[in-house]
Amino acid sequence: MRKYSHDVVLRLRIPHRPGQLAAIAAAIAEHGALLGDIATQSAGEHDTVRDLTVEGRDEAHIEAVKHAIRGLDGVELMGVTDMVFERHRGGKLASRARAPVTTIADLRYIYTPGVARVSRAIERDPDLAWEFTGIGNSVGIFTNGTRVLGLGDVGPLASMPVMEGKAVLYDQFAGISATPLLVDSKRADVFIDTVALLSKTFGGIHLEDIRVPECFAIEEELVRRLRKPVMHDDQHGTATVALAALINACAMTGVDPRASRVGQIGLGAAGSAIARMALAYGAKEVLVTDPSRDAVVRMQSMGGTPSDLETILRECHIVVATTGRPGLIAPARVRPGQVIFALSNPDPEIAPDVALAAGAAFAGDGRSINNALAYPGIFKGALSVRAGAITAPMLLAAAEAIAALAPKGDVVPSPFDPRVHAAVRDAVAARATAQGLAGTATL
Amino acid sequence: MRKYSHDVVLRLRIPHRPGQLAAIAAAIAEHGALLGDIATQSAGEHDTVRDLTVEGRDEAHIEAVKHAIRGLDGVELMGVTDMVFERHRGGKLASRARAPVTTIADLRYIYTPGVARVSRAIERDPDLAWEFTGIGNSVGIFTNGTRVLGLGDVGPLASMPVMEGKAVLYDQFAGISATPLLVDSKRADVFIDTVALLSKTFGGIHLEDIRVPECFAIEEELVRRLRKPVMHDDQHGTATVALAALINACAMTGVDPRASRVGQIGLGAAGSAIARMALAYGAKEVLVTDPSRDAVVRMQSMGGTPSDLETILRECHIVVATTGRPGLIAPARVRPGQVIFALSNPDPEIAPDVALAAGAAFAGDGRSINNALAYPGIFKGALSVRAGAITAPMLLAAAEAIAALAPKGDVVPSPFDPRVHAAVRDAVAARATAQGLAGTATL
Repeated sequence: MRKYSHDVVLRLRIPHRPGQLAAIAAAIAEHGALLGDIATQSAGEHDTVRDLTVEGRDEAHIEAVKHAIRGLDGVELMGVTDMVFERHRGGKLASRARAPVTTIADLRYIYTPGVARVSRAIERDPDLAWEFTGIGNSVGIFTNGTRVLGLGDVGPLASMPVMEGKAVLYDQFAGISATPLLVDSKRADVFIDTVALLSKTFGGIHLEDIRVPECFAIEEELVRRLRKPVMHDDQHGTATVALAALINACAMTGVDPRASRVGQIGLGAAGSAIARMALAYGAKEVLVTDPSRDAVVRMQSMGGTPSDLETILRECHIVVATTGRPGLIAPARVRPGQVIFALSNPDPEIAPDVALAAGAAFAGDGRSINNALAYPGIFKGALSVRAGAITAPMLLAAAEAIAALAPKGDVVPSPFDPRVHAAVRDAVAARATAQGLAGTATL
Repeated sequence: MRKYSHDVVLRLRIPHRPGQLAAIAAAIAEHGALLGDIATQSAGEHDTVRDLTVEGRDEAHIEAVKHAIRGLDGVELMGVTDMVFERHRGGKLASRARAPVTTIADLRYIYTPGVARVSRAIERDPDLAWEFTGIGNSVGIFTNGTRVLGLGDVGPLASMPVMEGKAVLYDQFAGISATPLLVDSKRADVFIDTVALLSKTFGGIHLEDIRVPECFAIEEELVRRLRKPVMHDDQHGTATVALAALINACAMTGVDPRASRVGQIGLGAAGSAIARMALAYGAKEVLVTDPSRDAVVRMQSMGGTPSDLETILRECHIVVATTGRPGLIAPARVRPGQVIFALSNPDPEIAPDVALAAGAAFAGDGRSINNALAYPGIFKGALSVRAGAITAPMLLAAAEAIAALAPKGDVVPSPFDPRVHAAVRDAVAARATAQGLAGTATL
C-alpha cells in the first residue's frame, strides 16, 4: 500500500511553450511528492488548463509543492481540490429504494394499502420478517466515537466519516445494508441499553471505535442479551486479519504457529482479541503484557500468561505489538528468526526493515492488517445462515479463508480480490452450520 | 384511487382453442374481480402459459376467483403470486455507497488513511459535518409500532414494512436518505431518551405510528431538546394534507375557511393536529369533541372549543371526522351546504356519496389524504435551509403549496405529480427563512 495519503488535484494554467510540463514535474519530484494523472481541461491560444493529481505526505508537504509551482515562470495555480474531502462531499452513503416507485400501483404495493397485509402477516408470524423486510441482510454500526482509528476520542459526530466508510464497504464487498448509529454517551450501560432497544431493527450488530475497557463490557453484555451476530470489529475483525497474516508469515518462514509461543505486547481492543485468537487457533502458549493490570488479569482468565516485554522478545517465536508506542521494540532485542508484527498506526513499534536487518525472519506493520478483509464476509456468512452469534471458530474459519487467498509473497490478499469476501462468507456460514448455530438467530 | 388492494398474478396453462381467454375473463368478471395485464410466458404445441394479473378485495375474494378458474375445462392454475408480498421480498430499502469503491485509491480516500483527515476536520469544526457526511440530508424514522396504520399495536418488528415504505418514498420523492429505527419500548421516557441519544446521527427526526397519548409527550419533549426538524407524521403530515384538501374543498364550494366554524370530531394524533392546523390557518372557531376528557382539555389549551357531535354537525360549515367509527355520522344530521371530510380508514364515518345525497356541498374520505404528499418535501425544505425546527407556519406553507397543485375537480394532486415535492420543499424552506429559522439547526 502506498504511504502517501494526501492527494490533491492542482488546476494549472500553463503557457504553450516546450518544457513547461517537464519543469512542473521536476518541481514536484524535487519535493518528493508523486505526480499522478494529468488531464487537459481546456486548450486556448496561448495556454492550456490542466488538472494534475499530486500525492503528498501531508498538508505541509502539499503546501511546499504548491509554493514551488507558483514560483515557476508563467504557470498559474488556479485551484486546489483535496481528493479525500471531495469524495466525502454530501456523505458517502445513502438509504435507497431497492426498486423504483413510479406508479400508483407501485405505491399500493409498497405503501398503503398493500403494506398492511405484510405487517399483519409478520405480526402473526415474526419469522416472515426475514423474508419480507430488509432486516435479515442488515447491520447496525454502533459507535460513541470514543476511540476512532488512531485519533482517539473525537466524539460521535466526528466519527461519522469512519462509520460511513465501514458501511460503504459492507455494501461494496458483501451487499449488506449497513447503517451507522452515533450513540451520544460514554457510559457502557447507556450504550448497551440503547443498542438493545434498537436491536430489532438489524440482523447484526457491529460495534465500532469504542474505547477500552467499556468496549469489553458492551460487547459481552450484548452478546449475552441478543441472539444475533454481535461483534466489536476493533477486537475481532482486526484479530481475524492479524491471524490470517500470522498464519502466512509462519508458513513463509517455516515457523509452526501451533507449536509456538506467541507474545502479545499491548492488550487494548485489538491486542487482547489477537491473544484470544492465537489461543483459539492452538498456540502452545500466549505470553501477554500491558501497563494495565486489569487488562492482564482479564487476559489471564482467558488463558494468557502474564509476562513482560523483555521475556516476550527473548522467548517467543511470534511477537505481535499493538501498543501505540513507536519504536518500543529496540532492534537489539529482536531474536533471530522471529516473526514480528508491529501493528501500531501510523508508526510501528519497530519498522519492518529495521526488524529484518536485526535478524527477524518476517516483519510486518499495521498497513498489512486491513479490517475490510474480514468484517463484511463475517457478517454476511453469519446472516446468511441466521446464526445467533459470531463465535471464535467462525472467526478462525474466516482467518483461514483469508490466509488461503494471499498471493505468493504477501501475508494477506487485497480486499479487491473478488474471491475473498465470498470465501470468508462461505467459511463462516459453514463453520456456523457445523456448530449447530444455523437458524438460531432471532429478530 | 382504486379500492381493491389484493393483486395477484395467476399463472395458467391454457389449451389452444378459441374462447379460452374469454371464458377466463368472464369467470373473473362474474366474481367482481378486475383483470389487469396478461403476459404470455411460453407457447407450446397444445397450450400456452400465461400470467394474468387479477385485482380482488381480499384473500377470500381471490380464493373465489381461483376456484372458478380451476372449474374451467382444460385450464390449469399453475401458480399464484401475491404482488404485494413479491414487492416486499428481501425488503424495500437498502443502504448503499453513493459512489463505487473499486480501487486502492478509492479505499484510501473513503476509508483509511484518508478518512482520518475528514474526522479530524469535523472534530475541529463540527459544522463541516453538514458538508462532508450524509447527516444533513438524512432522516431517522423512529417508531415503537404501537399504532400502525389502521392495525393498532403490532409491535416494532411488524411495523418495519410500513417504515421501509416511508423511507422508500423519502428517497423517491425528495432524495432524502431515511432510516427506519424500531424502538422496543412503549414507555415515552425510554423512547425520548433513545431518540435523543441517537439524534446526532440524523439531520431530521421523523416520529411514526406511536400511540396516543405517548406520541404527544414524545414529540413535545424531543422538539424541546433538539435543535433540528422533529415531526410526528401521523399528526402533522396528515394535518398538512388534510388542510390542503380542505382549502380546495372550500374553494370548490364557495365556503371561506377563515370565516368558518370548523368542527373536529375525534382528537387522536391526526384529529388534534388537524384542529391545531385549522386554528393556525385562521378558522374563526374550531369546535372539538372526543371521548377522552384529557384530549379535549389538551385541545382547549391550544385554542379549541369543547363541543359535542350534535352541535358540531348542526353549527359547523366544515366538519372533519377522525374517529375510527364507521357510520358515526347519520345522513339526517348533515347540514345542507356542509363540507365533510370523514377520514377514518378503511371505512369512513359517512360515505362521500351518502353525505352528498344528504345535502353536503362536498364530501371526502381518507383515500384523498395521502401523507406521502407532505412529509418528504417538508423535511427536505427544513433540511435544505438547516432549520432548527418544523413550525406551524412551515406546515401551512406546505399545505398551501400542495393545495395549489391539485388538478381541477380534485382536492389534492397525485404524489407522482413531479412538481409537488419540490413545491413543498421550496415553500417550507422559504417560510423557515422568513421566520429566521434558516441555519439554526445543530448536529
